[in-house]
Amino acid sequence: MPQGFKYNRLVKDDAACLLVDHQSGLISLVQDFSPGEFKNNVLALAACAQYFKLPTILTTSFEAGPNGPLVPELRPMFPDAPYIARPGNINAWDNEDFVNAVKQTGRKQLIIAGVVTEVCVAFPALSAIEAGYDVFVVTDASGTFNEVTRHAAWARMAAAGVQLMNWFGVACELHRDWRNDIEGLGALFSNYIPNYRNLITSYEARK
Amino acid sequence: MPQGFKYNRLVKDDAACLLVDHQSGLISLVQDFSPGEFKNNVLALAACAQYFKLPTILTTSFEAGPNGPLVPELRPMFPDAPYIARPGNINAWDNEDFVNAVKQTGRKQLIIAGVVTEVCVAFPALSAIEAGYDVFVVTDASGTFNEVTRHAAWARMAAAGVQLMNWFGVACELHRDWRNDIEGLGALFSNYIPNYRNLITSYEARK
Amino acid sequence: MPQGFKYNRLVKDDAACLLVDHQSGLISLVQDFSPGEFKNNVLALAACAQYFKLPTILTTSFEAGPNGPLVPELRPMFPDAPYIARPGNINAWDNEDFVNAVKQTGRKQLIIAGVVTEVCVAFPALSAIEAGYDVFVVTDASGTFNEVTRHAAWARMAAAGVQLMNWFGVACELHRDWRNDIEGLGALFSNYIPNYRNLITSYEARK
Amino acid sequence: MPQGFKYNRLVKDDAACLLVDHQSGLISLVQDFSPGEFKNNVLALAACAQYFKLPTILTTSFEAGPNGPLVPELRPMFPDAPYIARPGNINAWDNEDFVNAVKQTGRKQLIIAGVVTEVCVAFPALSAIEAGYDVFVVTDASGTFNEVTRHAAWARMAAAGVQLMNWFGVACELHRDWRNDIEGLGALFSNYIPNYRNLITSYEARK
Amino acid sequence: MPQGFKYNRLVKDDAACLLVDHQSGLISLVQDFSPGEFKNNVLALAACAQYFKLPTILTTSFEAGPNGPLVPELRPMFPDAPYIARPGNINAWDNEDFVNAVKQTGRKQLIIAGVVTEVCVAFPALSAIEAGYDVFVVTDASGTFNEVTRHAAWARMAAAGVQLMNWFGVACELHRDWRNDIEGLGALFSNYIPNYRNLITSYEARK
Amino acid sequence: MPQGFKYNRLVKDDAACLLVDHQSGLISLVQDFSPGEFKNNVLALAACAQYFKLPTILTTSFEAGPNGPLVPELRPMFPDAPYIARPGNINAWDNEDFVNAVKQTGRKQLIIAGVVTEVCVAFPALSAIEAGYDVFVVTDASGTFNEVTRHAAWARMAAAGVQLMNWFGVACELHRDWRNDIEGLGALFSNYIPNYRNLITSYEARK
Amino acid sequence: MPQGFKYNRLVKDDAACLLVDHQSGLISLVQDFSPGEFKNNVLALAACAQYFKLPTILTTSFEAGPNGPLVPELRPMFPDAPYIARPGNINAWDNEDFVNAVKQTGRKQLIIAGVVTEVCVAFPALSAIEAGYDVFVVTDASGTFNEVTRHAAWARMAAAGVQLMNWFGVACELHRDWRNDIEGLGALFSNYIPNYRNLITSYEARK
Amino acid sequence: MPQGFKYNRLVKDDAACLLVDHQSGLISLVQDFSPGEFKNNVLALAACAQYFKLPTILTTSFEAGPNGPLVPELRPMFPDAPYIARPGNINAWDNEDFVNAVKQTGRKQLIIAGVVTEVCVAFPALSAIEAGYDVFVVTDASGTFNEVTRHAAWARMAAAGVQLMNWFGVACELHRDWRNDIEGLGALFSNYIPNYRNLITSYEARK
Repeated sequence: MPQGFKYNRLVKDDAACLLVDHQSGLISLVQDFSPGEFKNNVLALAACAQYFKLPTILTTSFEAGPNGPLVPELRPMFPDAPYIARPGNINAWDNEDFVNAVKQTGRKQLIIAGVVTEVCVAFPALSAIEAGYDVFVVTDASGTFNEVTRHAAWARMAAAGVQLMNWFGVACELHRDWRNDIEGLGALFSNYIPNYRNLITSYEARK
Repeated sequence: MPQGFKYNRLVKDDAACLLVDHQSGLISLVQDFSPGEFKNNVLALAACAQYFKLPTILTTSFEAGPNGPLVPELRPMFPDAPYIARPGNINAWDNEDFVNAVKQTGRKQLIIAGVVTEVCVAFPALSAIEAGYDVFVVTDASGTFNEVTRHAAWARMAAAGVQLMNWFGVACELHRDWRNDIEGLGALFSNYIPNYRNLITSYEARK
Repeated sequence: MPQGFKYNRLVKDDAACLLVDHQSGLISLVQDFSPGEFKNNVLALAACAQYFKLPTILTTSFEAGPNGPLVPELRPMFPDAPYIARPGNINAWDNEDFVNAVKQTGRKQLIIAGVVTEVCVAFPALSAIEAGYDVFVVTDASGTFNEVTRHAAWARMAAAGVQLMNWFGVACELHRDWRNDIEGLGALFSNYIPNYRNLITSYEARK
Repeated sequence: MPQGFKYNRLVKDDAACLLVDHQSGLISLVQDFSPGEFKNNVLALAACAQYFKLPTILTTSFEAGPNGPLVPELRPMFPDAPYIARPGNINAWDNEDFVNAVKQTGRKQLIIAGVVTEVCVAFPALSAIEAGYDVFVVTDASGTFNEVTRHAAWARMAAAGVQLMNWFGVACELHRDWRNDIEGLGALFSNYIPNYRNLITSYEARK
Repeated sequence: MPQGFKYNRLVKDDAACLLVDHQSGLISLVQDFSPGEFKNNVLALAACAQYFKLPTILTTSFEAGPNGPLVPELRPMFPDAPYIARPGNINAWDNEDFVNAVKQTGRKQLIIAGVVTEVCVAFPALSAIEAGYDVFVVTDASGTFNEVTRHAAWARMAAAGVQLMNWFGVACELHRDWRNDIEGLGALFSNYIPNYRNLITSYEARK
Repeated sequence: MPQGFKYNRLVKDDAACLLVDHQSGLISLVQDFSPGEFKNNVLALAACAQYFKLPTILTTSFEAGPNGPLVPELRPMFPDAPYIARPGNINAWDNEDFVNAVKQTGRKQLIIAGVVTEVCVAFPALSAIEAGYDVFVVTDASGTFNEVTRHAAWARMAAAGVQLMNWFGVACELHRDWRNDIEGLGALFSNYIPNYRNLITSYEARK
Repeated sequence: MPQGFKYNRLVKDDAACLLVDHQSGLISLVQDFSPGEFKNNVLALAACAQYFKLPTILTTSFEAGPNGPLVPELRPMFPDAPYIARPGNINAWDNEDFVNAVKQTGRKQLIIAGVVTEVCVAFPALSAIEAGYDVFVVTDASGTFNEVTRHAAWARMAAAGVQLMNWFGVACELHRDWRNDIEGLGALFSNYIPNYRNLITSYEARK
Repeated sequence: MPQGFKYNRLVKDDAACLLVDHQSGLISLVQDFSPGEFKNNVLALAACAQYFKLPTILTTSFEAGPNGPLVPELRPMFPDAPYIARPGNINAWDNEDFVNAVKQTGRKQLIIAGVVTEVCVAFPALSAIEAGYDVFVVTDASGTFNEVTRHAAWARMAAAGVQLMNWFGVACELHRDWRNDIEGLGALFSNYIPNYRNLITSYEARK
């Protein structure tokens, strides 16, 4: 056990969200989630970023080519977010504009998700750790070819100190206490967790 | 091979849609689909019924109890549909109002989906076959406890002559020809098939 | 589609339940269900037989040997049931006492479950069909070595006209209408379907 | 058991091959095979059609839209094959040119594969059965969204008398006897079955 | 349900066993069983044939080539069995010597297993049904490339009236009654079912 | 390998058990165990805590809302246990009462299980490690949405020094020696491990 | 990456083999391997210990009770091995005789396998690490209830510095060079790896 | 988290590629990938090595025996590569010629893939780490008997500091920037990622 372990937990005012290469072409490569689950998870993470008002950065890789444009739902959710259409760098962290945008958030905790996990997520995650950031990868909003490539990517990132999360864990760790806003968090869960919506439906019916 | 096989295909003007017991409590029993996939499939089927203007019947089982109310999305999609809140009959076909509602559609082809597959779907499906209807069960908008119970239910229904479909097959068989309405069908697919939406996004970007 | 299909559904007054070889040794061979699921399903089916007062027959194969005795829960549930400890017949239907016990129930519908599916269930099921009975095999209260042997057994039985059910379907088809006894059926479900009990717990909390 | 069963087996001089909608966009919807397996199976089936000189028909659905063009490997393999770019009919059999092309082959046995299974394959398969053809669907060169939609599609087709095959079975049934051409069949297997190529490699090394 | 169903069960004096193409090369193509399970199942079936003294026929396809020789365990178990090394016929039933060997057994029930399921098993199974035999395919002693090809092969055979069995079911159906030979059957199970051997070990320890 | 590794094993007199948010609503979100398995595991862990007389703390999150009340089996098992109904803190460790209750146990080893794994378990587990406790998470009595979220949660906790256990391992590590109480431990296993009960049944039958 | 990593590899003259609780009753609890695979792996590991003449220790837990005796194959393979029938200690390392037997081997590398993984293997493995031994757990000769309990046990052991191996890796690491004994190693592989036997069969046929 | 983490990423001019024992016999042992996927991955990795002009070393184990020769595709891709046919060393690193060939590349980063993962890959990987190299194992171009042996091998290697990659990640990390050669990288992906080829096909059709 690491001595003197410090629970480095997500803090609303110290976290930024990086959405990397959620492009219409690249997403068709993802096969470790069903397409419906994956879309839901990506939009749920985006909704968290929006709800918690996290500085958010959008970036794409070579979007004029077969990789395709950013999925159309994301941009309108973050109209003021930096949008870095990388002309060629595969690792977003190799792009100066991207790194500058990250710096300008002034945040130390980076929540990262993207497509595909072992490249578009793992590369900037490892670079960011090296640069001294705390990195939280949202595993269920990051997709890849299959479970083998996913597990290898996770192992590489975990070995570097990346914290592996899911969007629901991110939301809960940021929110801290239901009393901060019961309705807002309930709406978030209701929109992206069908069984939670069912709980609410049953609950409301009997109040 | 059945001699003189007749391809009994869905016809827009001869089909009705029966949505059985998609209730907030019962859906929490479904474990043969991920909750996200299942919700998507149910809403996609409902969207088909709406799009093709199929007479649609909604029914619930004991909705004042733990089974819970109908999921809130469905009723507003079919404001004029008969809504049969069965006070106790487990097999919807044992409920006179339900059978009458079916008769009043004047349709011979019944598209059925519900929760759980081996009860709320299979029972009325078998009753309807006996009553002389052609029955098309939408397997991916019908959920149950696990794959074992699903496969047993499918076998029982198939042996009775039920045709096993999925919502996408229903949509395509009803539509017949893209030229009937390219935009409408494209929108339907775009809303409920994330990878199809991706195809459209990439396509539109390059037109 | 079979012409003139007749929905042959379970009727409380015309059904008997045959529990075949649920013995402590044989059950250790079952690997197509987790042990916990399997035990729950078997006891749930037995509870249905008890609840609906179905004539029930218990039988074992060679119980003095490694196959082991009947699991201890079953006998006390049916203190007056015929109990046929077969000295050697593998197919219970080859045992005259067993067939006589079935005849003496006076029932035409036989609900069968046992271990292992392709032998202790399939053999008497096929024999009973040949003898003119209607047979309903409870697939989730019947276990075998793996999914391959299960699927082959199902195919053989289905081809003979056996109806493949699960215990929940059996309960619902026998009960017909919640109003016959809401509390009784609710208790049955609460005892053997954890998520149903959860629904009831949540429901009761808010009444 | 069907009385007087007649083994209706594929005959080189009586079979035609229909490749339906193997388009670059539609294939991205396929998730019941890994992309690599699926591509291999489709090309293997095409290689069989070529090798056995089966009359082959290529068809696409709405190829100017998001469905995308036929995958580039197929057309050059069948330079003289009828190529029906359907302007809108979802069921290829609804397209007169397609049906005429089938008729002009003069064959009674139709080998069909395509994307997606429950629509582009099942619809023309059922239509062709109705029209009196013998239909052999190549299951592993036909893809769909997931295993649920695949199994439902298979059940529907099997109930109509469609014979479910895989490309390897098609090749073996058409070839009949290794002595007809050892080298040719060996090359076919070597190209599309990596483990068969390994067997040949080991074998050649020791001859 | 088939009217007047007749339970066509295996009879020791009316059954023969056909082991088709269990060759060292071909078996390396099998991936729908783990290699250890598959070897165990094939040897278990062979041990049944031996134990019940079933006339048994061994055949191989092109054994001088990459398909390789028969696995070495089988021939010594049946030193007097006809051994048909087919020079080229893929379907064993196309080989006159093989069919004659079957005829000379004088048996009407054919138990068939082999590699690969959809070819070396399905082809002679379908031919034998056509020729008027009763066919029992031993699914777990027959292997193929993956589960998709297995399920398609099963569906094709089941539609023709083939009965799908596993080796354990074959043994039990042939034996009928433990009292015919407790020790013999116990030894058979002990050798090929590790958990059954464990039951016996525990049992013997406490006698 | 960590130098000077110290096997930090569970000690009956130094361990406490924290059961976090096993509520009727939240449990319906769990899909990485079958409902029956999960219920069994939670009750088995509770039975261990009871059997070993571990100080136990029950806590719930927002139980008046859709999350629902604690499942009814748990409270009666620990009538004197502190019961902290948290009004809003998502991480139980953020609740002063909860932390005080933990402190008052005077134990250094914390056995934690709950729903959902990545939040209700991982958050307090990480906080407790930071606070200097030894933490043992009972993985099979902790549930979440799916295997992806589970694995990510495990990785995060393991990186912090949490020991991942299952309830059976907890029981065995606490008990140390069968001779401390053969009957008691045997009863515990018999109640929650069906195959262990089968062993006992067979054993008793032959004593 | 650990600085100055030292590849601690198995050395024939420094390794001992500990087979823990492979008892007929306990093995019936194992469900994370098929029974056939598991038996094969255990016997393969034992054959390695025998072949490489490793000092081997056999131990059992409470073998007079339901746990059952050691499986009968193991003892005759190691007639001179210490055999410690533990009267009650669950962790074999808590038994003085066992630890003494280990010490008397004079070896520093301990190869451990047993049933169940998280208890009978993990407990002595962690104790042995603490005692300064190098521990190599043979994962595929160690079984448990399911994959969840397996993964948790692996994580706990790996965190302590245990090296996770399989029997084939053990054999290869001990053997070092085929030239030490081609025939012997070949025979070992042929006996326990069916596909390796197939390679040899094909190879021998063509020499 | 490791303090002062340094992202050790692949650099075109500092990496070499070691392809270990991709032999026709050994590959038939691989069952943790479908044969088609595995072949594709191995050839894709080889194509990367070729494309990025990495010094590459080919080696085989006992290729005159049942292990069989190197698969025929590899050698022609690297006509000038050192080719070490090891006469007996199981761990390639035990072979002086091999180690010398590695040294002569002058590279510090070793990309390793081979068959089987836990032996032919893990052994030289661990040796190379010990010798001071940076090791990147290409998990999807390395195969073994099943997922259990794979996971154990990964855990052992990761604990030693090996970085787990897949071929696609290797390609992307080496390439750095699409602008270095769009067409070349696109062709590589198009050849080995069918869905990427589909993206390109759709894209080209609309340019």
